[in-house]
Amino acid sequence: MTRAQTSNSLAALGEKGLLKVLTGAWKTNPAQVLTGVGDDCAVLRGEGKSHFLIFKTDAVVEGIHFTAKAAPELIGRKALARALSDLAAMGASPLAAVITIGLPANESVKRLRAIYRGIEKLAKQFRVNLVGGETTRAAQLFLNVALLGECRGYHPRLRSGARPGDLLFVTGRLGNTQKRHHLVFEPRMAEGQWLAKQGLASSLMDLSDGLGADLPRLAEASRVQFELNEKAIPRARGASLAAALNDGEDYELLFTVPVSHVKTLKKKWPFALPLHCIGVARLPQKGNSRPPISHGFDHFQQR
Amino acid sequence: MTRAQTSNSLAALGEKGLLKVLTGAWKTNPAQVLTGVGDDCAVLRGEGKSHFLIFKTDAVVEGIHFTAKAAPELIGRKALARALSDLAAMGASPLAAVITIGLPANESVKRLRAIYRGIEKLAKQFRVNLVGGETTRAAQLFLNVALLGECRGYHPRLRSGARPGDLLFVTGRLGNTQKRHHLVFEPRMAEGQWLAKQGLASSLMDLSDGLGADLPRLAEASRVQFELNEKAIPRARGASLAAALNDGEDYELLFTVPVSHVKTLKKKWPFALPLHCIGVARLPQKGNSRPPISHGFDHFQQR
Repeated sequence: MTRAQTSNSLAALGEKGLLKVLTGAWKTNPAQVLTGVGDDCAVLRGEGKSHFLIFKTDAVVEGIHFTAKAAPELIGRKALARALSDLAAMGASPLAAVITIGLPANESVKRLRAIYRGIEKLAKQFRVNLVGGETTRAAQLFLNVALLGECRGYHPRLRSGARPGDLLFVTGRLGNTQKRHHLVFEPRMAEGQWLAKQGLASSLMDLSDGLGADLPRLAEASRVQFELNEKAIPRARGASLAAALNDGEDYELLFTVPVSHVKTLKKKWPFALPLHCIGVARLPQKGNSRPPISHGFDHFQQR
Repeated sequence: MTRAQTSNSLAALGEKGLLKVLTGAWKTNPAQVLTGVGDDCAVLRGEGKSHFLIFKTDAVVEGIHFTAKAAPELIGRKALARALSDLAAMGASPLAAVITIGLPANESVKRLRAIYRGIEKLAKQFRVNLVGGETTRAAQLFLNVALLGECRGYHPRLRSGARPGDLLFVTGRLGNTQKRHHLVFEPRMAEGQWLAKQGLASSLMDLSDGLGADLPRLAEASRVQFELNEKAIPRARGASLAAALNDGEDYELLFTVPVSHVKTLKKKWPFALPLHCIGVARLPQKGNSRPPISHGFDHFQQR
């Protein structure tokens, strides 16, 4: 194939390449936008210096994110929970959501009602105002959730704040998610808000594609490398290390903490959800070909 | 068919019935939400009494909203323009948009790039910050635009404000839209903002499904009936009255003005876009079976 043909194929580009091609030219007004493409959510400036609006869009598609056999309530739940997890990854509080649904002509109204019940229950739990929507015909059922949230009186946590020396933490346990919870995971909303409000985390994101895919994104955004203590990675029951790294859909929080704050974090962490230190951020090594994560480092010294 | 079977079919319910089934149970927090489902956009309370956030989601799907042969730039343009027209229908200013794209595996990257160029050009024209997005696999190309806007220092115009006696106005010319402009229409942003800021319009919406379908929505939201002066409906070149009523995708503004403001409106209207008075709002007639619009009234007296 010629180069032009290669670059014209989605498979050759990959998701990251595609995003660069599609959004690489986007420019935003810095008076209005703190961060656009490239973090878990976009951050807009609100009123005054410590108010921020958090904006996210996310879709689930039948056959991709759920099977036709999935319990309809859980389909709706998942559609909203994924977007909420991204808000948690900024430490934000949800305000309102608008839902687009694409519908095959023969879709069952009973199933749709159940899908919306799933959305409504989770919205009630997390105090999300459901304020609007759109229905359209489509070949395949899809749900798009656009979510608006805010950080009021504190700064959202970004992916770009990790500094060399910061320790890397993860909540919960990773892997085996398809069997375990991909439809019923809990967005780590309270934990994310706590981390942002306490000012303890230097960077924060949620794990949606698996630690192996998401940690390089944190590394790239913060311009650091990570040394990972693989033995310390908390695995779900029945999950191998490979599963914990690669399964995806963990929806746990991944964050870094300056060494000076680690004691406070461990002392003050008010949640039952376990917290594990799994690595450390390092200065990127210029001019060498090491990947930004070194998986091989397994005698990491936890400080 | 039994009643249960009937109500389980999308065709039997229709879009309005479906929306009621899906969103009828939604409750919002009045301290945060001014208006949710049922207007062109949702309105959230901002900072202070005269700041409002305007929130909208809208999707275009290949084969439904555009054909595979449509110019890719215009597909992207249309996706954003539809949502902008809904913002115009509140009199709001756009702030930021996030885009979800659903992609078949064999989609051409060149075509996608052109679609996004179309989005970018319109975003630049209307000063919309493009701040994020999501890509997902799908059987059929779709684009979802979630748009955030604001009204700062004035109140958004709702569908619910028309009062008996108010005159009904429409911008531009209606009908023949498929041939004329369904991919290249101009969202009436400046006109909508002017109407809201001047405080002249008592209600406002945009025409997306055609006057014949949209006017009953204005009537229902405002609890009035409309008498329509069919001779006064401004038709596009080549459009019959039926086309002007039913074609849809006009994306013009439809609004009501109290009689006391009509002179000021006509005197101050600063736009080249034509303005036509096409009817009057009346008290709904209880207990009769007349539809909320009386099409037959064609000797309406324009005051």
